[in-house]
Amino acid sequence: MTVADRYGDPAATLGAVNDVLSMQLARRSVRKFGPREVTDEELAALIAAAQSAPTSSNLQPWSVVAVRDPERKARLAALAGNQAFIAQAPLFLVWLADLGRARRLAERAGTQVAAADYLETTIIGFVDTALAAQNAVLAAESLGLGSVFVGAIRNHPEAVAVELGLPPHTVATFGLAVGTPDPGEHAAVKPRLPQGAVLHRERYDAEVADAQIVVYDERLSSYNARFGLRGNWSSRVLERLKGPESMAGRHRLRETLERLGLASR
Amino acid sequence: MTVADRYGDPAATLGAVNDVLSMQLARRSVRKFGPREVTDEELAALIAAAQSAPTSSNLQPWSVVAVRDPERKARLAALAGNQAFIAQAPLFLVWLADLGRARRLAERAGTQVAAADYLETTIIGFVDTALAAQNAVLAAESLGLGSVFVGAIRNHPEAVAVELGLPPHTVATFGLAVGTPDPGEHAAVKPRLPQGAVLHRERYDAEVADAQIVVYDERLSSYNARFGLRGNWSSRVLERLKGPESMAGRHRLRETLERLGLASR
Repeated sequence: MTVADRYGDPAATLGAVNDVLSMQLARRSVRKFGPREVTDEELAALIAAAQSAPTSSNLQPWSVVAVRDPERKARLAALAGNQAFIAQAPLFLVWLADLGRARRLAERAGTQVAAADYLETTIIGFVDTALAAQNAVLAAESLGLGSVFVGAIRNHPEAVAVELGLPPHTVATFGLAVGTPDPGEHAAVKPRLPQGAVLHRERYDAEVADAQIVVYDERLSSYNARFGLRGNWSSRVLERLKGPESMAGRHRLRETLERLGLASR
Repeated sequence: MTVADRYGDPAATLGAVNDVLSMQLARRSVRKFGPREVTDEELAALIAAAQSAPTSSNLQPWSVVAVRDPERKARLAALAGNQAFIAQAPLFLVWLADLGRARRLAERAGTQVAAADYLETTIIGFVDTALAAQNAVLAAESLGLGSVFVGAIRNHPEAVAVELGLPPHTVATFGLAVGTPDPGEHAAVKPRLPQGAVLHRERYDAEVADAQIVVYDERLSSYNARFGLRGNWSSRVLERLKGPESMAGRHRLRETLERLGLASR
């Protein structure tokens, strides 16, 4: 049943099944949390899982700030699109692409890390942070916790840096609100594009892939209607990417990264 | 035991344990594969897991090319730092940040997606690809498969695009070699930084965090010696980030992205 939900397609099946796959397929974003705190033991497990993800050349170019203080969460919520669930979640993790640790190493050693002056290295920071955070998401699921990513933490990265006392060469890549799912939340697994739209064999075939979008638009339109939302996938993608005015300030990310000391050269 | 290996610290323990966490903690990169093929059913499961990862605004800005053809794998291996395990792996997945799908949607609709002209959107492409791929990594583990990421696929992104017939606005973010682990491989779980080096509470404290590096350097130095390698973590990070000459061509990533149609504005 879960793979059918994942694709919004009652006929979808998988030839391989196990507990991990079932948990991955059933994951959904949780935006309404019960009152129970996330314990220090659970937090330690999430971070250990995150650190177990692969990282380019073992650079480990990320850090994370665990925020539980209600007033700080409320201030971060205000900075991140006024999303109330950020303040409501017992734990808000702010994941950082962190080239500062290596820069400080170099400073103490009296040497240079000029490779950190390039966009490639900034992107390694973002990618490795994402690999780590996704492990934390699944670790949370395994502990009965729910979560949701908050890209809006990039709306005001400099204000976030002040709030969290970030050193130079670090930037908040995304937030992750974590807590026990409130069973009363009206939410479901969101169907994804048919596999044929994203999986190519040997070479990319845009025509075959894009032909899958028609049926997906119908599925997502039905799904959205269940939640009182209009539009299909295509219309929502076009709306979301319409222009800089649809980006909540994030069209300035490159200049902001420069000011925070993350290179885009 | 696994958390002790993960931190190279016999005293390390976790207050929360379950099968998913144990699998995450025990993951290591696999670079030597047995002869068994990865089946189509397994591939479908990896991709379904990948698609189940969170994605910003449901944009799903990624695609993946599954390469099994021995000659194509050999050519990709040559482009990605001559790493023999790429050709040796039965399956090589090339993960793509894909803004092409949305651009083609817009073209067919006769409209604009000007938000795709900004670095922010390119970074969403890289981040969402990474979230998806990390789910595939754990799905592979759950099926008894091993894997290793290949960042060197970014050494020559334009040649990779030609090899895979990529349309504009797509770029290979990283490869993932997948197969059954060869039990004869001399490899182990690589210890990571102590949690105190990456996890901050409420605000970032660089002094407290960086103080953890000394003991980690000792642990990684011992670990490296087991594999005939010299150096501790600090020395290897400084070497890896020394300058553009240590980047195998990737210091040109920004110009390459521009030519492939991924914005860095």
